[in-house]
Amino acid sequence: MEVDVTRLGHRIAELSAIGGTGPAITRLGLSREEQAARELVGGWLTARGASVRRDAAANLVARFGGDGPAILVGSHLDSVPEGGRFDGALGVLCAVEAIDALLDDGVRFRRPIEVIAWSDEEGARFGIGLFGSCAAFGRLPENAAARADRDGMTIADALRSLGESGDPTRARRADAAVSAYLELHIEQGPRLERAGVPLAVVSAIVGIFHGRVTVRGRQDHAGATVMGERKDALVAAAEMVVAVERIARAVPDAVGTVGELVPKPGAKNVIPGEVSFSLDIRAPREDDLERILRELRAEMRRIGDARGVTSSVDVLARVPVAPLDLPLRELLLRSVKAVGVEAPLLVSGAGHDAQNPQLAGIPTGMIFVRSTGGSHTPIESCDVADAALGAEALAGALRELAA
Amino acid sequence: MEVDVTRLGHRIAELSAIGGTGPAITRLGLSREEQAARELVGGWLTARGASVRRDAAANLVARFGGDGPAILVGSHLDSVPEGGRFDGALGVLCAVEAIDALLDDGVRFRRPIEVIAWSDEEGARFGIGLFGSCAAFGRLPENAAARADRDGMTIADALRSLGESGDPTRARRADAAVSAYLELHIEQGPRLERAGVPLAVVSAIVGIFHGRVTVRGRQDHAGATVMGERKDALVAAAEMVVAVERIARAVPDAVGTVGELVPKPGAKNVIPGEVSFSLDIRAPREDDLERILRELRAEMRRIGDARGVTSSVDVLARVPVAPLDLPLRELLLRSVKAVGVEAPLLVSGAGHDAQNPQLAGIPTGMIFVRSTGGSHTPIESCDVADAALGAEALAGALRELAA
Repeated sequence: MEVDVTRLGHRIAELSAIGGTGPAITRLGLSREEQAARELVGGWLTARGASVRRDAAANLVARFGGDGPAILVGSHLDSVPEGGRFDGALGVLCAVEAIDALLDDGVRFRRPIEVIAWSDEEGARFGIGLFGSCAAFGRLPENAAARADRDGMTIADALRSLGESGDPTRARRADAAVSAYLELHIEQGPRLERAGVPLAVVSAIVGIFHGRVTVRGRQDHAGATVMGERKDALVAAAEMVVAVERIARAVPDAVGTVGELVPKPGAKNVIPGEVSFSLDIRAPREDDLERILRELRAEMRRIGDARGVTSSVDVLARVPVAPLDLPLRELLLRSVKAVGVEAPLLVSGAGHDAQNPQLAGIPTGMIFVRSTGGSHTPIESCDVADAALGAEALAGALRELAA
Repeated sequence: MEVDVTRLGHRIAELSAIGGTGPAITRLGLSREEQAARELVGGWLTARGASVRRDAAANLVARFGGDGPAILVGSHLDSVPEGGRFDGALGVLCAVEAIDALLDDGVRFRRPIEVIAWSDEEGARFGIGLFGSCAAFGRLPENAAARADRDGMTIADALRSLGESGDPTRARRADAAVSAYLELHIEQGPRLERAGVPLAVVSAIVGIFHGRVTVRGRQDHAGATVMGERKDALVAAAEMVVAVERIARAVPDAVGTVGELVPKPGAKNVIPGEVSFSLDIRAPREDDLERILRELRAEMRRIGDARGVTSSVDVLARVPVAPLDLPLRELLLRSVKAVGVEAPLLVSGAGHDAQNPQLAGIPTGMIFVRSTGGSHTPIESCDVADAALGAEALAGALRELAA
């Protein structure tokens, strides 16, 4: 059995034309572009004999085989605004290629296989990341359908405009109807590139804490207020930003990031009276994540006390760690080895659709493919030869599971 | 000779009605509200025999006496958006009250006196602070008349709508036509309040460096980029913000403030690739100011080198230190003492119209009146009894200079 590198390369190019302007791809969740991408992929799979449908969350489901619990394999087709060609899309394309390779090889599936393209993984438009897989595995936030994009269009409206009922909770699958989930994704980080290895197997998807910190000091005139009399909320927040880095760095595989920071009133000659900033803390072990948060809260109190400012943390989201299934991890290590790669086990610092089936108790496995240029940017890149190796490993694992 | 506290209090209230909504005053430079304030003040002075005019920069000029170099006394009538009743306005009202008290006392001026209300001191609308006094003393930036507010109206347009020619450079005065300038202003800071003293004499107006720092790192995925691989522009900028405080604090009477800070792209799950922030450094001695800037640039280089990020500083404005006139300082200390106050000498950390005549070589003196609540806010406040003491000291100095 061999995957067809040329076919895979052509499909990457063909899919990139949807929502693409130059190297940048804008294929937002629940948009016409995402729908067109589903139709393209669905057409390929229909041609191979799949029974293709969309569920109530606009997930593409292409099923091979009859009744019984299915093995799911896929990723997502949406992108962030001005994103790249590989984040998500490559996982769907490699799943299609793996099926093609197996069918070309005359393999018959004893168990049903479904190729899935989850809708709106990025959450860039409505603010709900992993939307389609959350809907399928019962992890949507309450009243998700009422969330609106910046033009005031709700998720329910968007789903209706795509021909769905408008109620994404109806995409909920019986967990017993799914026996396993496999996903291939670009790494989005530099570890495989540094190691000179094309593939990795994912051991766990980090738990994530998203919060918003508000620091309250006292707004004053930048000229008339001597240094000793200040309660500068920005200098306090700056010390906290440095502390986030220091505390996260001390814990293996953990990361801590402040990506947004807004001083108020935000004028060059006014001492900021208030600052709010985002907090993104991730770790592959729950106790590590909790320890980082405890240390950070203590440090924020210490900084505040020393400066006469106060701070508070609002919790925006708390995603639990998803340790991926051990037997599937072993299976993927074997199938990766079968294509000639000694794959390392890596923690995924990014969230993935795969965490939803795993958190719902469905055995889940993931393969990372070496990528460069990060992700969520037109410069994200992945060598088609690496992608083909990944598709071949995926095919090997599917054969073992389903054939 | 005694000032009339009741009259002064009534006039504070009457002027506050122009542009006032509740305690907040919005009387922007070159607006109808500022014009109405000039008309109110001009009316009071016309009634006392002044010859009142507006110059080409919309400064109000109310002259008592005939030919020859004049002694100028005043401040400004504009406010920031949602500002207070005292910043600027009190200096004009106390100048009027001082003249009133002198005339009530039968004093005849041997030398001309002009009460001045400088236009658009705050620069809140067109971005040119000290606009009217810059125009009068030849310190306007180039093409100032073409600067536009956020509605696209230029200074030239605004001046024409007030009945002027539209060319503010025509307000330039011959320096020889001015023999001295006196200004009273609220302190805007806590020093007099802390000391329990109602008045101070200003020794110098700080020099100011306004800059914009840009820190360039590398934008990356907050989940997929391990801590050791980051070039986080925000953590680097945060260390620089803390350094601004530390370096400025070590120099007496100097201040350093970061009021604006914008991380890009500014998303919670993206490591900032670029940060820009404002830099406001002030000191009452040129060599101190230069030393702070040197140390800060060195520290920014050190932080950048350690983190693999770069930074650059764009100079937006550099206002030289204005050490106020020594004989006028002595005169004001005497006249303040004559009203029963042992006034401290204070450095002004805020810029004032007074720096423009001083920098043009005209002997200039300033009195600070105790104030609370800072400034540029509706809660800025000044006791009318303190203001009356200030007006009386101002009258005493004017008598000595002109009578």
